[in-house]
Amino acid sequence: MKKVKIGIIGAGRIGQVHAKSISGSISGAEIVAISDPYLDGAKKAADQFGIPEAYTNYQQILQNAAIDAVLICSPTNTHADIAMEAAKAGKHIFCEKPIDTSVEKILETQRTIQAAGVKMQIGFNRRFDHNFRRIRTLTEEGKLGEVQIVKITSRDPEPPSAEYAQNSGGMFLDMTIHDFDMACYQAGSPVEEVFAAGTVTVDPEIGKAGDIDTAIVTLRFANGALGVIDNCRQAVYGYDQRVEVFGTKGAAAAENDTPTNVKLSTQEAVFSDKPLYFFLERYMQSFTDELQAFVDAIRYDQPVPVSIEAGLEPIRIAIAANKSMLENRPVKISEIE
Amino acid sequence: MKKVKIGIIGAGRIGQVHAKSISGSISGAEIVAISDPYLDGAKKAADQFGIPEAYTNYQQILQNAAIDAVLICSPTNTHADIAMEAAKAGKHIFCEKPIDTSVEKILETQRTIQAAGVKMQIGFNRRFDHNFRRIRTLTEEGKLGEVQIVKITSRDPEPPSAEYAQNSGGMFLDMTIHDFDMACYQAGSPVEEVFAAGTVTVDPEIGKAGDIDTAIVTLRFANGALGVIDNCRQAVYGYDQRVEVFGTKGAAAAENDTPTNVKLSTQEAVFSDKPLYFFLERYMQSFTDELQAFVDAIRYDQPVPVSIEAGLEPIRIAIAANKSMLENRPVKISEIE
Amino acid sequence: MKKVKIGIIGAGRIGQVHAKSISGSISGAEIVAISDPYLDGAKKAADQFGIPEAYTNYQQILQNAAIDAVLICSPTNTHADIAMEAAKAGKHIFCEKPIDTSVEKILETQRTIQAAGVKMQIGFNRRFDHNFRRIRTLTEEGKLGEVQIVKITSRDPEPPSAEYAQNSGGMFLDMTIHDFDMACYQAGSPVEEVFAAGTVTVDPEIGKAGDIDTAIVTLRFANGALGVIDNCRQAVYGYDQRVEVFGTKGAAAAENDTPTNVKLSTQEAVFSDKPLYFFLERYMQSFTDELQAFVDAIRYDQPVPVSIEAGLEPIRIAIAANKSMLENRPVKISEIE
Amino acid sequence: MKKVKIGIIGAGRIGQVHAKSISGSISGAEIVAISDPYLDGAKKAADQFGIPEAYTNYQQILQNAAIDAVLICSPTNTHADIAMEAAKAGKHIFCEKPIDTSVEKILETQRTIQAAGVKMQIGFNRRFDHNFRRIRTLTEEGKLGEVQIVKITSRDPEPPSAEYAQNSGGMFLDMTIHDFDMACYQAGSPVEEVFAAGTVTVDPEIGKAGDIDTAIVTLRFANGALGVIDNCRQAVYGYDQRVEVFGTKGAAAAENDTPTNVKLSTQEAVFSDKPLYFFLERYMQSFTDELQAFVDAIRYDQPVPVSIEAGLEPIRIAIAANKSMLENRPVKISEIE
Repeated sequence: MKKVKIGIIGAGRIGQVHAKSISGSISGAEIVAISDPYLDGAKKAADQFGIPEAYTNYQQILQNAAIDAVLICSPTNTHADIAMEAAKAGKHIFCEKPIDTSVEKILETQRTIQAAGVKMQIGFNRRFDHNFRRIRTLTEEGKLGEVQIVKITSRDPEPPSAEYAQNSGGMFLDMTIHDFDMACYQAGSPVEEVFAAGTVTVDPEIGKAGDIDTAIVTLRFANGALGVIDNCRQAVYGYDQRVEVFGTKGAAAAENDTPTNVKLSTQEAVFSDKPLYFFLERYMQSFTDELQAFVDAIRYDQPVPVSIEAGLEPIRIAIAANKSMLENRPVKISEIE
Repeated sequence: MKKVKIGIIGAGRIGQVHAKSISGSISGAEIVAISDPYLDGAKKAADQFGIPEAYTNYQQILQNAAIDAVLICSPTNTHADIAMEAAKAGKHIFCEKPIDTSVEKILETQRTIQAAGVKMQIGFNRRFDHNFRRIRTLTEEGKLGEVQIVKITSRDPEPPSAEYAQNSGGMFLDMTIHDFDMACYQAGSPVEEVFAAGTVTVDPEIGKAGDIDTAIVTLRFANGALGVIDNCRQAVYGYDQRVEVFGTKGAAAAENDTPTNVKLSTQEAVFSDKPLYFFLERYMQSFTDELQAFVDAIRYDQPVPVSIEAGLEPIRIAIAANKSMLENRPVKISEIE
Repeated sequence: MKKVKIGIIGAGRIGQVHAKSISGSISGAEIVAISDPYLDGAKKAADQFGIPEAYTNYQQILQNAAIDAVLICSPTNTHADIAMEAAKAGKHIFCEKPIDTSVEKILETQRTIQAAGVKMQIGFNRRFDHNFRRIRTLTEEGKLGEVQIVKITSRDPEPPSAEYAQNSGGMFLDMTIHDFDMACYQAGSPVEEVFAAGTVTVDPEIGKAGDIDTAIVTLRFANGALGVIDNCRQAVYGYDQRVEVFGTKGAAAAENDTPTNVKLSTQEAVFSDKPLYFFLERYMQSFTDELQAFVDAIRYDQPVPVSIEAGLEPIRIAIAANKSMLENRPVKISEIE
Repeated sequence: MKKVKIGIIGAGRIGQVHAKSISGSISGAEIVAISDPYLDGAKKAADQFGIPEAYTNYQQILQNAAIDAVLICSPTNTHADIAMEAAKAGKHIFCEKPIDTSVEKILETQRTIQAAGVKMQIGFNRRFDHNFRRIRTLTEEGKLGEVQIVKITSRDPEPPSAEYAQNSGGMFLDMTIHDFDMACYQAGSPVEEVFAAGTVTVDPEIGKAGDIDTAIVTLRFANGALGVIDNCRQAVYGYDQRVEVFGTKGAAAAENDTPTNVKLSTQEAVFSDKPLYFFLERYMQSFTDELQAFVDAIRYDQPVPVSIEAGLEPIRIAIAANKSMLENRPVKISEIE
C-alpha cells in the first residue's frame, strides 16, 4: 500500500516530536517537506530527520501536489486559518490543539473541512496514553458498569512565566483544556454544566496578570455522571497526571509513570522514583500513537479518532469554566455561544 | 495514678466498640457501668466486657458518683440533651458525632459545657487513623509547605435503605460530615465557602426519598487552599477512604488499607486485596486511639484533641452544602446562622 | 462454655506479650497465675494484666489444680524439662520455640506428651501472620497449582552481640529456625536435603565467635519442590520478612508490612515507610492468633495447629544446615540422628 | 561526525530487532548491508528497514570496505568463527551471546580480537535495562554500601520444546547465562564458587531429554558477597525478571515492568497488569541502548561496556553450575578449564 506523504507546518518543539515519530516509528507514512518562517529551523529539522524539502512558507507545502496530509504545528492563533487553507488545497489535516479559542472560528473551520471532504484530526494525544486508554477500554468493555464519577489530577512540574500566562487565554484554555477533553473521553459523554473554583497559590505574578494557577473544576455530564479536575501550575515532585473512573461495577485508576520501578530502602526511608518529568517524557508514546492512528485513518479511509467536533467541546467547557470562575456560579455549556 | 471511671450510655454497636477498646487495650481507664433502654442489651454487653453495672436509664450513670466520664453512644437526637445533663452532673464527656444537626443546639451545649468546666470530646475518630494522622504530621512538620489542595475520596461499600436515607438528615449530614471534619483537619483551616454538586447514581429510591447518593463538593478554606470531596453511597469493591494533601513543597497521599498485602499472579491477572470492608475494620484502631486520647486528656488535665468547636464546624459546612446543592450556587459558611 | 484457665511460666518479654494478648483480645481464656524466679517481675506483670497469683516457682503453677494449660516462656534450655513436668501434671502446653536443640530430647518430650495425653503447641507464630497464612491458603485452595519454589527473605534490623551469637547455637538454630518452619509450612512438605552457604558481612566479631551473620540456604523438599532462604543479621532499613510461593498455576508474594501506607512526594523523591521495625511490631497479631488457636483447640478438643512433630522438623534442618556449611556440601536430613 | 556504517549478519528475529533500533532510534549509525543464507529473509528486512544491500553470504559484508562494524546475529555455533573472521577484516564487532560454549574457543577469539585491535561488545542487553542499570548505579554511588547479597529471579513465560532443550547446552548455558552475567554485573565481582540445585517441575519431556527446567543457584563472589538465582522455564503469569541487591547501607529492588499501571477494583478483587510478556517486550529499550553504547564506543574510541572478558565469565559459571548439579556439590570456577 502507498505511503502517506506528509508535510509538517512548523519546526518548533512539537513539529520535531512528530518528525521524530514519523521518521522512526510510524509505518505507512513519510515526511516530504517541513516549513517554518525561521528557515534555519526547518533546515535543521530536515537534516536531522532526513526530510527532503525545507520551506520558509507553509503555502509551499499546500502547493506541493505530492503531499497527502499536513501536520499543523504552528502557533495556536494560526491553526484555524491554515487548516481552512489546507482543506481547500485538498490536504488531510492533523492539527495541534486548540484549533482556536473562538467557538465561531472553529465552527467555520468545521464547515470548511466538511465542504472539502478531507479528514481532520485534533492533537489530543493523551487519549492515546497507554494508561488512560486502558481505563477507557475497561469502561467500554463494561467492566466498570455505568460511569458515576470521573476524577482527573493534572499538575505541571513548573509554572509558566506570568507573561506567558497573560497571553495564554488563561489556565483553563491553556492547560485544563487537555483535562476537559480527557473528562469527556472517559465519561463517554459531553459536559452540560461546569463550576470552577480558582485561586493563586504558586506565583502571585500570575495573579497580577489576571490568571490563576490552581483550580478545582466540577463537571456535570449529559449522561448523569459527575466529574472533577484538580489543577496546579506547579507540583514540585514533577508532572502529576492521574485519571480515575468510578462506576457501578468497579473503578479503574491510573497512576503516574516513572523512569524506573526501583525501590531503594535505607535507614532513612524507602525511596522510589518521581513521575516522568513533563509531557515529552510522559506522553512520548502517545504522540507516536496518535499519528499512527491519523495515518491509518487516511490509508484505510476510516474516521479519525479525534474529530474537529471533539476538538470543539473542550473549548466550550474552558470558556464556560472561565465564566463560572468570574461569576462564581455554575455555568451551563449551552450558555456559551 | 488513679484510673478514669467510665460509664457508657448506649449499648448498641458503637457502645460495644468502645467497651471492647477500654476493656482490652486502653490504659488508665475502666468501665463502671453501661446503660441502655433495652436492658438485655446493656446486660449482655456488661457480661461480655466484664462491666460491673448495667442500667436501663442513663441517668443512673449520671447519678453514680464513682463515674468520672461518660461516653454518649445513644441515638443522635439525644446527644446534646444528654451531654448537657452530664455536664451539669460534673462528668467529662465523650460524645459520638454529630452532636446535633442544629447549630443553635450545639452552641447551647457548648455554653453548658463551658459553664460546667468539664471536658467534651467529639467522636471524629478518623483524625486518629494512622494514615491520615501521618499526613497531618507531615504537614505540621513543614514537609508539604503551604497546603494548596486537600482531596478526599469517601465511598461506602453499601448504600443505606431509602428509609434510612430519608431520616438521616441527608447524605451531607450523615456521611460527608466525617469528610468535612477531615478536610478542616488536614487543611488546618476552617471552610469559608462550599459548592456541592449532588446526584443519584446508586439507588433511585434514595432520590425519591429526597436525598442524593453521589456528590462532588468543592471547599474554599479560610487560609486560601481549595478542597474537594467525592462521595458515593456505594463502591462495589468496598470502603474507599483516601486522603491527599498537596502543598508547595510536596504532596502526601494515603491509600486504602487491605487485609493482607499478598499479590497473586496467574495467567489471568495480578490480584490483590480489596480495601478493608467497612468502618469497623478500617477504623478499629482509631476508635481505640481516640478514647486513649480522651482518657489521657482527663488524667493529665490536657485539652481534648477534638473539641466541641471542632464538632460544630462540619455541621455548618454540611448545612451549607445542602443549601448549595438545592440552590445550585456556592454558599458561604457565614450564611449559616 | 467454661474458660480455659492459664498459667504463664516466665514473666519476660514473650511472657508479657502473651499475658497482654490473653487479657486483652483472646476469648475463652483467663490467666490464673504467672511465675518467674525473679518474683518482682512476676508481680509486676500480675499487676499490669490483672493476674490473681504471682509465684516464684513454676511448680506452684503445675500444682495449681485450677489451671488447665501452661505457657512455657522460660529460657530455651528449660523448655523440654518443664514441658515434661507439665505433661505429667496433666496440663496442656503451649511452648515457645525451640523445644530444645537436641533431637533426642525433643523425641523424649514427645513420648512424654503422648503418654500423658495432653495437647502441646509450639510457638511458631509466623504461621499465623495474616500475609503468610493467606499465601498458604491460596496454595491449599489450589490457586498456585503444584508448588515449585518457596522463597523466603528474613533479615533482622539489628545484629545480636557477638557474645549472644556465641551462645545462641548459631544463626541457623537461633534465627533461621523460623524460616525453616515457614518453608515447610508453605511447601506443605518436609525437607529432604539442605545446602547452606554462610558468611560474615555484618560484624567480624560474630565471625570470631564462630558464627555467621549472612546466609543463602537451598532446600530440597520431599514433594520435589525447591526452596531458598536468604538471611542476614542486619538490614539497616528494618525487619525484612517476605515470602513467595511459585507454582504451576500462579505465584503468591507477601511484602513487608509498614506503619502507614502514606507516600510523600517531594522535589527529592517519593518516600514511603520502612517495614515495621521488629518482631513485636510485625508479628503482634500473630502472637494473639496462635494463642487463640491454642485455647480453641483445648475448648473444642481439636488438634493443635503446630504440633511437637512440627516443632522437631526445623531443628533437624538447622542442624543439617550447620553441618552443610561446615563441610561445604549438601546434607540430607536423614543424616541427622 | 561521521556515522558508523554497519553490516548485520543474520536476518532472524534478533537481527531484525537491531535493524529496527538502528533505523529508528540510534544516532550516529546507519545500516549499509544485511546478510542471511536465506536471501529472501535478508531482502525482506532490507526492504522493511531501508537497508541498501542484502547479501546471501556474510563474507560479502566483511569484504565491503564501507562497513565499519558488524552485528553478529547468526546461530550461536557460528559466533566465534565469524567474529574472528570479522576481526581479521578489521571490523568492530557486536556479537550476540553466548560467544561460544567452549571456554577455549572464546579465549582464541579473544586473542584474535586483541591482535586485530578491533572492539568487540557482547550482547548482554539486560545490563542496559533501565531498572537493573539503576540498581547498579545506586551501588556505584555508594547508596547500598558493601554488597552482601544479590538476588535474581528469572522465569520465562513458556518452556521451550524438549527438542530445543536437548540441543541448547542445558538450561544454565541457554537461559541462566543472562542471570550469571547480571549477578556479576550487580555484585561488581567475579564468581568463585557455585552450587546448583536443579529439578524438573514443568515438563517431564525436558527431564527425559537430560535437562532441567527449575533451579536454585547459589553463588559465592570473589568480593565476599553471596548470590542466588531462581529460574524456571515457565511462569504462567509471564516473564518474571527481578533483581535485588542488598548491602550494608541499603537495598535496592526492581520489580517487573507492566504494559500499564492501571488498577481495576471490582467486587471480586483488585486487578493489575501481568508483567510484559517476554524479552522483546520487556527488554526492547535495552536492545536499543546497548547498540547506542556500541556505536558511541566506536565513534568516541572508548572501551565497549560489555567486553569479551565479560562474555567469558558467565560461560565458565554455567559450566561450573552444570558440574555442580551433576555431582551435587559446590564447584569452584577455578576448576573449569
